[in-house]
Amino acid sequence: MKKFLNDPGDVVREALAGLAAAHADLRVDADGGVVVRADAPVSGKVGLVSGGGSGHEPLHAGFVGPGMLDAACPGEVFTSPVPDQIVAATKAVDGGAGVVYVVKNYTGDVLNFQLAAELAGDDSIAVETVLVDDDVAVEDSTWTAGRRGTGATLIVEKVLGALADERAPLAEVAELGRRVNERSGSFAVALSGATTPAAGEPGFVLADDEMEVGVGIHGEPGRRRERLRPAREIAAMAVEAVLAAKPVPAGEDVVVLLNGLGGTPLIELYLLYGEVARILGEAGLRVRRNLVGNYVTSLDMAGMSLTVCRADETVLRLWDAPVRTPALRWGC
Amino acid sequence: MKKFLNDPGDVVREALAGLAAAHADLRVDADGGVVVRADAPVSGKVGLVSGGGSGHEPLHAGFVGPGMLDAACPGEVFTSPVPDQIVAATKAVDGGAGVVYVVKNYTGDVLNFQLAAELAGDDSIAVETVLVDDDVAVEDSTWTAGRRGTGATLIVEKVLGALADERAPLAEVAELGRRVNERSGSFAVALSGATTPAAGEPGFVLADDEMEVGVGIHGEPGRRRERLRPAREIAAMAVEAVLAAKPVPAGEDVVVLLNGLGGTPLIELYLLYGEVARILGEAGLRVRRNLVGNYVTSLDMAGMSLTVCRADETVLRLWDAPVRTPALRWGC
Repeated sequence: MKKFLNDPGDVVREALAGLAAAHADLRVDADGGVVVRADAPVSGKVGLVSGGGSGHEPLHAGFVGPGMLDAACPGEVFTSPVPDQIVAATKAVDGGAGVVYVVKNYTGDVLNFQLAAELAGDDSIAVETVLVDDDVAVEDSTWTAGRRGTGATLIVEKVLGALADERAPLAEVAELGRRVNERSGSFAVALSGATTPAAGEPGFVLADDEMEVGVGIHGEPGRRRERLRPAREIAAMAVEAVLAAKPVPAGEDVVVLLNGLGGTPLIELYLLYGEVARILGEAGLRVRRNLVGNYVTSLDMAGMSLTVCRADETVLRLWDAPVRTPALRWGC
Repeated sequence: MKKFLNDPGDVVREALAGLAAAHADLRVDADGGVVVRADAPVSGKVGLVSGGGSGHEPLHAGFVGPGMLDAACPGEVFTSPVPDQIVAATKAVDGGAGVVYVVKNYTGDVLNFQLAAELAGDDSIAVETVLVDDDVAVEDSTWTAGRRGTGATLIVEKVLGALADERAPLAEVAELGRRVNERSGSFAVALSGATTPAAGEPGFVLADDEMEVGVGIHGEPGRRRERLRPAREIAAMAVEAVLAAKPVPAGEDVVVLLNGLGGTPLIELYLLYGEVARILGEAGLRVRRNLVGNYVTSLDMAGMSLTVCRADETVLRLWDAPVRTPALRWGC
């Protein structure tokens, strides 16, 4: 295994210590696994909490800050956070208007966020949960009943963060989150497996001319393994898969995330984005906003995911609203 | 070779087409290899132009925009841009106050920017050149006489972009660039070689337990190849190498860039940053600003570089000034 680390068992705690050192506007409990914006709780604002296994950085801790998440609960690598973490985050960010959990659809995450919501309820904190299940590749998977949650999580977190900033009430924030998720689809292709520090070896191995089509962000198998194809064909395949599951009528607006899975450099992501933008344009869709980069990753996996979110003016306005986090920052 | 591309010979042009599709506020000549902020030239402002071989994304094209570069000239992968490209960029951004070239110290870049400066001079455009040679690992290298230019390029481009925005005159902008470069040192460690699309194979191959210490951003050999060590020892080695060449007295302020070389995920970079911040703190330095991420890369190379820039209040103020580019954005 070739990674920059000390003891493999310390990687999450030590990375959080680095995050704390880098970002004075975050309050980081590296041992407890809780990252909170330093000015939390914001009185009267709905709190926004997400979390999940580590290894998907910058998701979620890199999205904590004004205009996006109030807190993130990183679990161990590819392992759900425990309810105690989530409850601690919930209490830290509750400003009296309730808390929304943004939960990617993995069985462990769903269960632990549900337990946390019940515990928070005992403390009279109202919690709503938005389940993200945008990955159209497969129904059910290694750690999931139903579709997996991937790239759309970023869009949900950005848009809900902005809506919460406008002091929208709890139910409205949750409702928009469900709508954005419903209107989003993602599809991923891997060129290599990810190596967790604990395992020390790739979760799967592809031949030199192979790719995994429809891969999950923990290396879960996709639809099939096939021969590597040119970028324009991979882009077309991803667009087709997403639009088949989540059709968008011609003339409609979309937000596009062309995401790297961690080991793929930006030059390839932009090349892919060019293909995707062209194909979507030919389908009559209007790409109103886009984001290209490594945002929802799978450690060092070489690969890409495409997320297309059908967007109305409300979503576009909230997307554009100021955000100030380690990984997404604009307008402030 | 496992990359997202079509014809390997088209990768730069197609990636630039994707950049154009993604960023409407850039004017991109994908065939000519020139990326210009859409509102150029800005009258009365010193223009800032950089460039170099592609494969280091987001450097340089990802740093074009208000508050940073006015134009970038990407060459083919790991290949200098030609003088014509640079002249076209120069003419596009000249607002009557002259143009500063930020040039990483590689023989081809130095030569071609020099030729371009002469050609621009024939058109009565005053040009000053800032040579960046911050990499303390080696004197002279595969494509360099003297030290190589690496991570400090980002800091020079950010700070000079802000100073130019304040309408500082040509000589002052260039002078600050030289001072920032002089006060910056960088050092890189690779865990794997980079694969160019043209070659299709890694530029060098490391054993499973090896690292290349002092590597260059094209895979140029460093000081030595040695056994992989824990992150805290690698961080200490990098800090020591930088401070030995560019000493910073205790109590002084620094800006730190903890940079990934393209194939290393953020979780490892933050872990390294935690170690670096601790070590610098123990040395009595005050880390006033930091940046952690993949900014000055070498395609898919797994690795890191550390840049430490001794900073005064002017540099800090200019660092904080608004910037709006694809890869760096804050304050606007």
